[in-house]
This record gives sequence, structure tokens and C-alpha cells, in this order.
Amino acid sequence: MGRVVIGVDLGGTNLRTAILSPDGNILDRHKEATHAADGREKVVSRLIENIKRQRKSAIQQGFDVVAVGVGAPGVIQVDKGIVVKSPNFPDWNNLPLKDQLEKTLGTPVFLENDANAAALGEQWRGAGRGIRSMILLTLGTGVGGGIILDNKIWHGADGMAGEIGHMTLIPDGRPCTCGNTGCLEMYSSARGIVQSFREALGKASGGVPDQLEQVSSEQVYEAAGAGNEIAVRVMKDMGRMLGIGIASLINIFNPERIVVGGGVKDAWPLFIGATREEIMKRAFAVPAKRTEIVPSQLGDDAGMVGAAAVAFELQKTTC
Amino acid sequence: MGRVVIGVDLGGTNLRTAILSPDGNILDRHKEATHAADGREKVVSRLIENIKRQRKSAIQQGFDVVAVGVGAPGVIQVDKGIVVKSPNFPDWNNLPLKDQLEKTLGTPVFLENDANAAALGEQWRGAGRGIRSMILLTLGTGVGGGIILDNKIWHGADGMAGEIGHMTLIPDGRPCTCGNTGCLEMYSSARGIVQSFREALGKASGGVPDQLEQVSSEQVYEAAGAGNEIAVRVMKDMGRMLGIGIASLINIFNPERIVVGGGVKDAWPLFIGATREEIMKRAFAVPAKRTEIVPSQLGDDAGMVGAAAVAFELQKTTC
Repeated sequence: MGRVVIGVDLGGTNLRTAILSPDGNILDRHKEATHAADGREKVVSRLIENIKRQRKSAIQQGFDVVAVGVGAPGVIQVDKGIVVKSPNFPDWNNLPLKDQLEKTLGTPVFLENDANAAALGEQWRGAGRGIRSMILLTLGTGVGGGIILDNKIWHGADGMAGEIGHMTLIPDGRPCTCGNTGCLEMYSSARGIVQSFREALGKASGGVPDQLEQVSSEQVYEAAGAGNEIAVRVMKDMGRMLGIGIASLINIFNPERIVVGGGVKDAWPLFIGATREEIMKRAFAVPAKRTEIVPSQLGDDAGMVGAAAVAFELQKTTC
Repeated sequence: MGRVVIGVDLGGTNLRTAILSPDGNILDRHKEATHAADGREKVVSRLIENIKRQRKSAIQQGFDVVAVGVGAPGVIQVDKGIVVKSPNFPDWNNLPLKDQLEKTLGTPVFLENDANAAALGEQWRGAGRGIRSMILLTLGTGVGGGIILDNKIWHGADGMAGEIGHMTLIPDGRPCTCGNTGCLEMYSSARGIVQSFREALGKASGGVPDQLEQVSSEQVYEAAGAGNEIAVRVMKDMGRMLGIGIASLINIFNPERIVVGGGVKDAWPLFIGATREEIMKRAFAVPAKRTEIVPSQLGDDAGMVGAAAVAFELQKTTC
């Protein structure tokens, strides 16, 4: 009977579950709304139901479900399987999710932070295959990060490492939701792009036209793709800021690869030139040439795939 | 017969050698000028002479010299023991120093980058004892760095990791010798302090008085200690810039400890308040509180001690 694991990406918006083979193929997948606002008990029940449904399906197909891997947002104490704190689930403080799931499911469960899981997913089956040191930057609403060194996630002393979106780029720059000013996230995320576009538009035309009050980052890429000069400049500036941050990461880590994911990745040709230019200008020549900057490959699957990788890996060492 | 190693700190200015016991005590030490300008052959001969003299002295005292550890500036390929490139020794490109020394000495030799060796020295016997993840920042003429994660130096893909002095703090800031602009090194090193003082003085009095043309960083600390307002402000600004850099490192690494060494460390009370303020303002609360920021303890011995640590450690695994 073939061994499989269930990989889970528990996001603030979507709950994704999949059955994965030991070589990382997705054999079955399911996605539904998380409804985070329903509160801890209901969300955990929904999570359990989804895992059980996948498990049943796996068993019916003749597979042996050896473990479950869960990627969750926030601060995760990986060794104990506790969600210490999660911005998406405010009432989850110090939730022993691993224990709760294991008791109900009777299967080994392993937890990882979602950005770290995505990094492991890309390393296993995506843009980081064969690479032992890589950094994943996810440019979404905010900017997330996962650091893989010597083939392992670097978690830090409190499980909070990898907050690359909150490096300071401009000491007295834009106020960030984290309390700092001038974080990378404020310039190179979807939110940052929208803010830059609105600022540039305000300067160019003395105010933001009504029909652009609710402009999205996607609309900015589209406008840039269609040749709108302001949007083109905004996307280049975003790329420059990303390049400044990546240049520092290269000088600090001298990594093999940096993988850029998240929704903003779709605008790749609009920013990557400016990013590379900034890196070559700022980072030391040898590591700058060494570090490949590549787009992520797994999209929304990265978290599930990485959670499955964790489950396969740790299940080996605990059995 | 007691086992000892010889620890060497091969600097651009000074060549230090010491006999160290397995618990890191310095049993004997020697320092002389490196005379880097004499060229590769002469410097290597001088290095060999010094090691031989220490070894002879150790043997006379009844010790067994089991290995030699050498900390050298520049890019070191640690596994092969090659000095790839060194700013202090321009004619040392790709020098197989480990092999050369081993052939002549008949004793196992291990190489490490000098900043990494200093970090390992502080971890073993100085400000990092008992700590598994720490970052050493040496504020000297420039700013060097050594990163210890999970008890090991993070070398990076080319042995060039840890160039923390060349994180960008001010994207369009002061031109750095590395080619970048606005590096941490340009604000928080001895050179940076002198530049800031001269700039501040120029602004305040319309020019730098003749007698201050050659001001040193030590003179700036002294002036600040004596209450000179401009010097006090310069030292605080230096501390702020250091804090901006450290806050980013805390968000990226979530380390247990950050050790600050180098000559500028002697001005500790003049800058550390501003550094801590900036960290608390900018880094995430949990890791910011967790990370202890402490002065280095070993001073100029750190490199030798760390090189000895490497020798003891690797000698175990190769014998």
C-alpha cells in the first residue's frame, strides 16, 4: 500500500488540503473558505473535517496516510506544535494544535509557519529544487519570508525568523503596520504598489481621480503593461526597492537562490530588470552573480506541498 | 601529556599566535607586525616561523600540539583551506594556505575567515558563552560580521556570508568603498564616526578647523565624553544607525544574542542607548526583547581564540 501524507495550508482566507505522494505529487486536492471569524473551535473542527475527508478518500484509493503536515500563519513553536500567536486567528494564543489534531485523528501531525512551509514546498517541488540555501520572498498583500539554510528552515530563537518584509529600507519612510517605518513590505507588496501609484498619481494630477479610489495592484500592473507611464515607473520603483532589500540579503547570507512568489510575481517583467540592476550595483560581485533570482513555481500549492514535506521528513525521524 | 592547539590571527597589521588549552585558556601568546606589503612568500614564512616557535615552546612545556587554527581576512574556502581573495593580501589569490602549512608543519591546519573566527572565539570564551545563535558585529575601521546559527558559522555558498557592514541603510547615502551607497559601515564604523563629525563640524562652523583635519574616532569619543555637543550628537546618530541595522537583523534572524566588538565598542555608553531605542521602535516586540545586545569580551584575542576553537573542533572530526 502506497504511503501518502495530507498537506494542509490553513490560511486566513482559504483552507487547502491535499493528498501527496512521497515524491511530492498532489493526488487529490480540496479548497474551501476558512471563515476565520467563526472562532477557534469552529475553525479547528472545520480543519479536522477536511483532513478526515481527505484521509477517507486516500484510504478508499488504497493509500496509507502516515502523517499530516499543517502550515499555519503566525508564530509557531515547531517542536511542540503550538500556534503561539497568529494575526489571522486572534483567539488562537498558545493553541496546542498538534496535540489537538493528533488526539482526534490518531495520526502524527506536524506544524510549520505558512511562509516557511511555502519555502520548503518550492525547495522540494518548485523553484528551489536541488538548492540547499534559498530565501523565499512572497510579495502578497504584505511581504513574507522563509529562509532555508543548509537544507533546513532557520526558525530563530522564538520561531519568528524570516520577517524579511520588515527590514528597514528607508529609515524615515512609510509607516508600516508593524510599527516600524520604511519596511520593505511598504514598497514591494501589493499594498505598497497601490500606495506608490496613488502617490504618483496625486503628484502628477493634483489628486486621485474618483474612478481610481479603489485601484488594485493588478490594475496597476495592467496599466503598466499597457504603457501607462506612471504605472511603469511605479513598477520599476517597486523593483528597485526589492533589489535594495535583496542586495542586503545577498551580502548577509550569500545564498544560492532567492525565490520570489506571491501575487506580485505575476508582474515579473515589469519589475525584475530594476531589481537585478540594483542588486548588481549594491551587492558584492561574487555572491551577486552567484545568487539566482527566480519566480516561484508552485503558486498557491506551495504551502500545502511544503507542509507535506515537513510531515514526510519528521514522520521518518519520529517512527 | 596535555593537548593544546595553536591559534593564529593573521591580520593585515598584526600577526598574533597563542597556545590554547582545550578549555580555551591562553597559555602563551606572541604578537608581531605582519608586514603584509612584504608579499606572499615572506608573510607565509613569517607565519610558519611564528607557529613553529609557539609549537616549540608548547612542547618544551610538555604539551602535545594537536592542530593549528588560522583566522585570515578575506574570502576563505573553509573546506579546502584556500584563501580565495583577501583585501589585506592582494597577491594571495587562491592560495592553498592549509596545504602549504600542513606540508611544512606536519600538523593538521584549519582555516577560517577572521570575522567568523572572532565570532566563534566570543561564543566559546567571551560574550557568547552558552549561546547557539549569535551575530558578531565588529565596529573597527570598517564593520565586519560573523553569523553563528545552531552553533555553527553560516558561511554561505561562496564563503562570503556575514558582510553585515554592507547592508544598505540609506539607499542614496554615503558612497562606500564596496561600490554601494549608504552601507551600515559608512555610519557605524570608526571611519563613519570621523566622517559624521567632520560633516557636523563643517555645518556648525562653516568648515573643519585645521587642527581637526586629522581627527580620529577616539578623539570624537573623548570629546563626546567631555560633553562636546556635536560629538555627543555624532555618537548618538552612530548608535541610531547601528540600531536600524540591528533591528533588521533581529527581524530576519530572531537570534539569541548580538555581540558588538571592535574599537568603537569602547565608546559603548555614548551610543548604546540610541541603538536600543531604535531596536525597540523598529523590530518585532518578542524577538527585540529576546535579543541581548552585549559588548564583546575578548578584544584582540577573539580571532586567535576562535581559530583555536575551529582547530579543536575539526581536529576531533578528522582524527
